[in-house]
Amino acid sequence: MTIDQYRLSEEPAYHPGGSEIAFYEAAYGARLPVMLKGPTGCGKTRFVEHMAWRLGKPLVTVSCHEDMTASDLVGRYLLGPEGTHWQDGPLTMAVRHGAICYLDEVVEARQDTTVVIHSLTDDRRILSLEKKGELVHAHPDFQLVISYNPGYQSVLKDLKESTKQRFSAVDFTYPAAAIEASIVAAEAGIAQAAADMLVRIGEKSRHLRGQGLEEGASTRMLIHAGRLMNAGMSLTDACHHALIVPITDDPDMRAALDAVVAAHA
Amino acid sequence: MTIDQYRLSEEPAYHPGGSEIAFYEAAYGARLPVMLKGPTGCGKTRFVEHMAWRLGKPLVTVSCHEDMTASDLVGRYLLGPEGTHWQDGPLTMAVRHGAICYLDEVVEARQDTTVVIHSLTDDRRILSLEKKGELVHAHPDFQLVISYNPGYQSVLKDLKESTKQRFSAVDFTYPAAAIEASIVAAEAGIAQAAADMLVRIGEKSRHLRGQGLEEGASTRMLIHAGRLMNAGMSLTDACHHALIVPITDDPDMRAALDAVVAAHA
Amino acid sequence: MTIDQYRLSEEPAYHPGGSEIAFYEAAYGARLPVMLKGPTGCGKTRFVEHMAWRLGKPLVTVSCHEDMTASDLVGRYLLGPEGTHWQDGPLTMAVRHGAICYLDEVVEARQDTTVVIHSLTDDRRILSLEKKGELVHAHPDFQLVISYNPGYQSVLKDLKESTKQRFSAVDFTYPAAAIEASIVAAEAGIAQAAADMLVRIGEKSRHLRGQGLEEGASTRMLIHAGRLMNAGMSLTDACHHALIVPITDDPDMRAALDAVVAAHA
Amino acid sequence: MTIDQYRLSEEPAYHPGGSEIAFYEAAYGARLPVMLKGPTGCGKTRFVEHMAWRLGKPLVTVSCHEDMTASDLVGRYLLGPEGTHWQDGPLTMAVRHGAICYLDEVVEARQDTTVVIHSLTDDRRILSLEKKGELVHAHPDFQLVISYNPGYQSVLKDLKESTKQRFSAVDFTYPAAAIEASIVAAEAGIAQAAADMLVRIGEKSRHLRGQGLEEGASTRMLIHAGRLMNAGMSLTDACHHALIVPITDDPDMRAALDAVVAAHA
Amino acid sequence: MTIDQYRLSEEPAYHPGGSEIAFYEAAYGARLPVMLKGPTGCGKTRFVEHMAWRLGKPLVTVSCHEDMTASDLVGRYLLGPEGTHWQDGPLTMAVRHGAICYLDEVVEARQDTTVVIHSLTDDRRILSLEKKGELVHAHPDFQLVISYNPGYQSVLKDLKESTKQRFSAVDFTYPAAAIEASIVAAEAGIAQAAADMLVRIGEKSRHLRGQGLEEGASTRMLIHAGRLMNAGMSLTDACHHALIVPITDDPDMRAALDAVVAAHA
Amino acid sequence: MTIDQYRLSEEPAYHPGGSEIAFYEAAYGARLPVMLKGPTGCGKTRFVEHMAWRLGKPLVTVSCHEDMTASDLVGRYLLGPEGTHWQDGPLTMAVRHGAICYLDEVVEARQDTTVVIHSLTDDRRILSLEKKGELVHAHPDFQLVISYNPGYQSVLKDLKESTKQRFSAVDFTYPAAAIEASIVAAEAGIAQAAADMLVRIGEKSRHLRGQGLEEGASTRMLIHAGRLMNAGMSLTDACHHALIVPITDDPDMRAALDAVVAAHA
Repeated sequence: MTIDQYRLSEEPAYHPGGSEIAFYEAAYGARLPVMLKGPTGCGKTRFVEHMAWRLGKPLVTVSCHEDMTASDLVGRYLLGPEGTHWQDGPLTMAVRHGAICYLDEVVEARQDTTVVIHSLTDDRRILSLEKKGELVHAHPDFQLVISYNPGYQSVLKDLKESTKQRFSAVDFTYPAAAIEASIVAAEAGIAQAAADMLVRIGEKSRHLRGQGLEEGASTRMLIHAGRLMNAGMSLTDACHHALIVPITDDPDMRAALDAVVAAHA
Repeated sequence: MTIDQYRLSEEPAYHPGGSEIAFYEAAYGARLPVMLKGPTGCGKTRFVEHMAWRLGKPLVTVSCHEDMTASDLVGRYLLGPEGTHWQDGPLTMAVRHGAICYLDEVVEARQDTTVVIHSLTDDRRILSLEKKGELVHAHPDFQLVISYNPGYQSVLKDLKESTKQRFSAVDFTYPAAAIEASIVAAEAGIAQAAADMLVRIGEKSRHLRGQGLEEGASTRMLIHAGRLMNAGMSLTDACHHALIVPITDDPDMRAALDAVVAAHA
Repeated sequence: MTIDQYRLSEEPAYHPGGSEIAFYEAAYGARLPVMLKGPTGCGKTRFVEHMAWRLGKPLVTVSCHEDMTASDLVGRYLLGPEGTHWQDGPLTMAVRHGAICYLDEVVEARQDTTVVIHSLTDDRRILSLEKKGELVHAHPDFQLVISYNPGYQSVLKDLKESTKQRFSAVDFTYPAAAIEASIVAAEAGIAQAAADMLVRIGEKSRHLRGQGLEEGASTRMLIHAGRLMNAGMSLTDACHHALIVPITDDPDMRAALDAVVAAHA
Repeated sequence: MTIDQYRLSEEPAYHPGGSEIAFYEAAYGARLPVMLKGPTGCGKTRFVEHMAWRLGKPLVTVSCHEDMTASDLVGRYLLGPEGTHWQDGPLTMAVRHGAICYLDEVVEARQDTTVVIHSLTDDRRILSLEKKGELVHAHPDFQLVISYNPGYQSVLKDLKESTKQRFSAVDFTYPAAAIEASIVAAEAGIAQAAADMLVRIGEKSRHLRGQGLEEGASTRMLIHAGRLMNAGMSLTDACHHALIVPITDDPDMRAALDAVVAAHA
Repeated sequence: MTIDQYRLSEEPAYHPGGSEIAFYEAAYGARLPVMLKGPTGCGKTRFVEHMAWRLGKPLVTVSCHEDMTASDLVGRYLLGPEGTHWQDGPLTMAVRHGAICYLDEVVEARQDTTVVIHSLTDDRRILSLEKKGELVHAHPDFQLVISYNPGYQSVLKDLKESTKQRFSAVDFTYPAAAIEASIVAAEAGIAQAAADMLVRIGEKSRHLRGQGLEEGASTRMLIHAGRLMNAGMSLTDACHHALIVPITDDPDMRAALDAVVAAHA
Repeated sequence: MTIDQYRLSEEPAYHPGGSEIAFYEAAYGARLPVMLKGPTGCGKTRFVEHMAWRLGKPLVTVSCHEDMTASDLVGRYLLGPEGTHWQDGPLTMAVRHGAICYLDEVVEARQDTTVVIHSLTDDRRILSLEKKGELVHAHPDFQLVISYNPGYQSVLKDLKESTKQRFSAVDFTYPAAAIEASIVAAEAGIAQAAADMLVRIGEKSRHLRGQGLEEGASTRMLIHAGRLMNAGMSLTDACHHALIVPITDDPDMRAALDAVVAAHA
């Protein structure tokens, strides 16, 4: 798998909500590691895709999870007809070839995964492939980006303070209403008026957060509703299947969300 | 194993209970991932079989469990006479060849399994075979479907919010009495009158749910009772072995269920 | 290992206690999965051996345990001079060749083991060998039987509701006194009068259950005592070594059991 | 490793404490599995060695522990120049060649280990080598013996009731004073009078059990003290190093034990 | 990978804060193992780099983590065309070739890792490669250094007393203001005045430690802020992204830190 | 690795504190297993080295840890060009060739490790290499020695009573002042007067044990301080780095220890 597989062939649409592009360009210029903070489905992944395209760098994305080990990132030996040969993992590929490496929800990964990035996030910028006996000096274009959802952390599962301090960080949240509506209209292929209605419903649902709802409707979910409308469903049915049923089974909460939709249908 | 193994050769019988077919067609049209919510044995698996047949797509079904890893879904290297070779897992096969992939009771699987589907459930529609060093772009026909039983979830074991938000969803429940009776009669090969009695018994047993019974008799269990009747057992004996003994050992609950059966025998 | 290894060469003695043979024949006729419920040592294993002999089918028995995995049931790759080759596990062998597969104390096994049987216990009757990439359609003679001891289950360790509902079930308990005595006499090779005494002692010990004794003497243990008598030991000594010492170290309980024996010696 | 390695070349000295030899001969005659119950160091291992010598059978002893798996007992595949070959484990070797297999402290082993012996401890007398695909029918001389220390069991770690019921059992305890003294004199090579003193000290120490001492001095420990005396140490020093320092660091308990020794020196 | 890979090619800048260089030289002269104690980001890693350069020795650095095993340090067998061959781990390489081996955050590693260093930290100075069957006597130049963050230890996770006692130790803390400012100015490439402001902000943030902030801004973080300023960001924005967002999401704490920055902007 | 690697080439200095040499010679004469009890750093390892040199036997030392398995002690199969071959572990090497095997801090090891030594510590004196299918009879010179730190044991982690009873034991503690001073002077190469001062400081620090200090300064730590003095540091600085900083971060305790040092400087 060559690194070119990881170049974005077309510009990912992105609607900036503030100065995050300027910050990212400064951080990339200084090759500071970057942490993107914010709730799920608000556009963090899209932002890093956009920046990779803008800076003309390949982007290697890794979705982290509880069972991910350092070997999954760094690489491992595989057995072939001539004995074992080494295969670079996604992080090593990015380090060698100067890609942006995006570790999505890094706090989910095991500790060995977060420690392996330490020597890449200070001025050493090296990656030690201990199993291979190789010290890889990072390509000048390499940068590390991680995402972090503050709402999910707990005492038991959080980044170590010595990891956090290695990153510069920027907050993300849902886009402002006008921006969000134009995103929904564009991505779902529906009329602006319908998108406006969906965004108003989404904002109302976010007010219910913490009152029995873990999170309100994300931008992603509004786009889902829009796509169902584009396929011919009514606003009410589309919201039912895309915004309500996926996230709650509580009858009172469902009734409250139904009322929100009815008020805009 | 070619993908053709996974094509359904004949139409799976399905009796719609509402607008679920229209919803599914809209969701499939937009290639939205779909979540089927509902209790065990109410027909979710049959519905997805029916839709796969209706849409003319192969269906790859995976029963998830606690010890299932991402490798079980994605694939792994096997050792042959020429060294190792890669074997696609069921998810990868569905992604490459444009099947519907149905992950049954996905919440049972380990976290790495739910994370691996993230990049398939947004507009990237890619699957990263990290061990193989390959990025698979999903076939245009590929769609992901999961089932979810709201009655089973707990704080400790639930889908992450960032996973739920990636799906459009539809509720399932037991069919209405007339529909359920015709299903039982057809599948068990018994007379309509007998099926009617079984369905009435089933409905009564569902009222006992939460009063010491975890769930009432499912459609599947009514069919079991019908088959024992078809093999010559009396209604009473068939209900005893198919509806009562399998689900409870509590003497009071057994007496209550016996009384329900006696009232209809 | 051919399937013929699993055919029973002579009829296993079995003394029916009720209508369990008729039920089993109806369930086998409809190919319904069967669950045998009852305490340890009351004859469940012997019953399924008897039915396999009666129906002329091979019987593959697997004792389940906490460390058993799906691979132990389904099969695995082994390394030979030509690289790896697949070896069917006991369940796969039964599925392919039309045996009755008996999973003894299935609740002890890990969750992946109980999930692997799901597609075999509905009308699909298929077994997916995911590691091999093969879908095995069950032989028409194949049937699945499991045993389940209600006295052992706990909240932490029980079959999932969605598993229980897939089975028809029948209760087992210790045989009636006259039947049990003839079993003990026949299996231990002792006189009917001695067997009668053992059975009366056994019944008394079962009344102590829950008063400090987890279970009373099973039929199996009465046969053990009979065999020690057949080898020349007195009733008192045989009961001491076969019925008392194995199951309790509590001095009061031992005294109570000694008194029961003394009353019949 | 042939089975002859496991034959005892000379008679292991054993001083019977009651009717345990008669019981064992009856149980072996009926091929009943045997459980030896009693505290550590009281002669259970020596007894089974003695019986194996007396019956002229090889004896395969396995010390069980928490990390022992069924494969450690049953066997496994090893990789050689021609690919893998099977190697019988100690249990399989005993089953094939008609040895007595002694599982010492079986309750320490993992559950899969105790379940693997189930089919060997009823009238099936078979061992299923699932990984090899072989059903081994036990040699007519094979017998299974386990040891069990009642003082060590807890709710969390005990044999399952369905395992216990498969065994006939006999209690062991420390030998009577006269017998114990002649054992100590013979095994340590010291005079009878010195052995008598050690046995009196040992009995006193056993009275302290439960008053801060987990167990008193076992026969084994008295022999240790005798051997140190045989090597020239005084009774006081020998008891200090062999009976006191190994088992307690509590100053009060040490003082109490010192006083016991001083009273006999 | 030869040991020369681990020689530092240019002098790492280091500003001494006290007598730590004299101590280190004395400890290295006596080949005493050294423990560097202090908070994250205060310059421990830089110090050991500086000392390795000063003493002209190669430096092998290992970032420890929860999943690190003794094999990761010592080495392992790898499979090649001629069968397995041994590959030294980073510790073994340092021991053989006379490097300084720096185990960063050693308390994170598993116990086997800390025990493996015991025989290297007393006058034996040997490393036993048990899997290889080799006793390696340490090169005369070899020395072991570990880092330890007192703020992170807990009862559950601390070095064993018998490990701590093997080390001589020195405390580290943040540099004095003047020194820290010149470090920040030099490393970030900003004017002295700007660096002074950042250091004053850093000191204020450290006073908030324990009042809702796990740690204040480290020297490393001040350098990050300086680099963002060097890339054109304002002091306020740079501090926001480098000092505040990475370490806290608490609105009150953010407001307090914002106020600190505003007071110096 | 031949056993000769494990012979000590010169006499390890040892200053006896009591009758421990006579005890050890008697125990070795009777080939009784020996347990050395005492705090860390008081000379247990040095003692066993001294005795091995005195008796002219090779000494195989193994530092035990939580992740050590029986295979690490006993041996394992390694893969070579001709398939697998067996490699003896350190215990097996000692058993075969008549070395003293010293298991340092054996209580840290996993249970399987302590059980594997059972058959070596009674009159069987055999080691069963179950994976190799070999029974090794111990060389007549073989002896087993373990160390045990009473201060570290807890209910959760202690030797099993049935393991303890297999050993004769001797207590160790810090040497008397005059002996300790001559050890420190000799090992650190400092004047007797300076060593006397260090020993007095050490004794004072041991009085603080249990008042916030887990253990006081061990003989080993006093030697460390002496070596730093030998390298030119003052008594105060040497004690700071060798006796205080490594073991406590508590300000009050540090002040108390500083005062102890100041009183002797």
